Amino acid sequence: MKGKFITFEGSEGCGKSTQSKLLYQYLKRSGYRVLYLREPGSTKVSEKIRKILLDARNDSMCAVTEMLLYMAARAQIVAEIIKPALAAGRIVICDRFLDSTIAYQGYGLGMDIGMIKTIGALTTQGVKPDLTILLDLPIEKGFKYHDPRKDRIEQRSGAYHAAVRKGYLQLARQDPARVKVIHGQADKQQIQQQIRLHVDKFLKRS
Amino acid sequence: MKGKFITFEGSEGCGKSTQSKLLYQYLKRSGYRVLYLREPGSTKVSEKIRKILLDARNDSMCAVTEMLLYMAARAQIVAEIIKPALAAGRIVICDRFLDSTIAYQGYGLGMDIGMIKTIGALTTQGVKPDLTILLDLPIEKGFKYHDPRKDRIEQRSGAYHAAVRKGYLQLARQDPARVKVIHGQADKQQIQQQIRLHVDKFLKRS
Repeated sequence: MKGKFITFEGSEGCGKSTQSKLLYQYLKRSGYRVLYLREPGSTKVSEKIRKILLDARNDSMCAVTEMLLYMAARAQIVAEIIKPALAAGRIVICDRFLDSTIAYQGYGLGMDIGMIKTIGALTTQGVKPDLTILLDLPIEKGFKYHDPRKDRIEQRSGAYHAAVRKGYLQLARQDPARVKVIHGQADKQQIQQQIRLHVDKFLKRS
Repeated sequence: MKGKFITFEGSEGCGKSTQSKLLYQYLKRSGYRVLYLREPGSTKVSEKIRKILLDARNDSMCAVTEMLLYMAARAQIVAEIIKPALAAGRIVICDRFLDSTIAYQGYGLGMDIGMIKTIGALTTQGVKPDLTILLDLPIEKGFKYHDPRKDRIEQRSGAYHAAVRKGYLQLARQDPARVKVIHGQADKQQIQQQIRLHVDKFLKRS
């Protein structure tokens, strides 16, 4: 049996990490063989790349370098973990995937989306999410305006994060069968219930 | 006046670093405004990427990740240093550039060379070497068989390094006006004299 690949997407502060971990616990309790990953990261090499990407001191990093570093980390997690896990029939939950690069570097930084998809195809080796949960939140709710511990990406302007959000919603419109939009402003448990409805339906169907 | 971009290429142990530094000193003494760079590296971000690339402990790194990390480091050095320096009329000498990725990841690891050139065009932003010195050496001369301090790339087999060398010679055949092949087995000073002949001729012409 081929496994299933479920990704979580959304802007900063949308609750994606919390919700994806809750889903992981739920599926594990339900008896599934589940793997929980985060992007960029989850392999030795990818975590080193993550450090460079998020370090606020690397403020001179150009857009192309940023995009390619996300892709490099992605190629490694796909080859080393995701592809073998799916081949072994596991459910893989990943906090962020290629949609993040399209939203953050494509819509957010204005890089060519066709180019991002071309490089994306090289890095993902045919691995595509079967289901994507997009947690949508008005920017002012997720944006940590005055937090001095913000990473290099979180430090960007509200206008940038608004463009990222718009990009995500565009992706959801383009592929509604895969991308399920959930409004991230409700109670944590309510949001998790909505996610489980989508996931249960998806797992029953497949 | 637009600057000039001179790159050095070659397999491991070909003497490229020594020779490029000697050329740098020579041009500086001759009164030129010269900048010496190495790839991957020479910017804060690119040096961090270099560390990941060369660390022999990162032995699980997949080919796509390796290629994209070289490209990410390159995009940064082009945007942050090479492009502004050339615009300011300087001579830029760089130890390795895009030809290295075509030789090492294309010919060496068997990655699609068309894809490498596509991503290369994105990272180099139209910056192309005006002159490339390729130091060619039979593999057995440059290959450090028993050195325990070898980096992740140097550790690869003789067959790999032979494919890289073959790739370089192919690149030289495809673009003889730009790529000058110099046999790296001669005396250090003799090699430097040959390089200076090419460079002096090139600088006089342009």
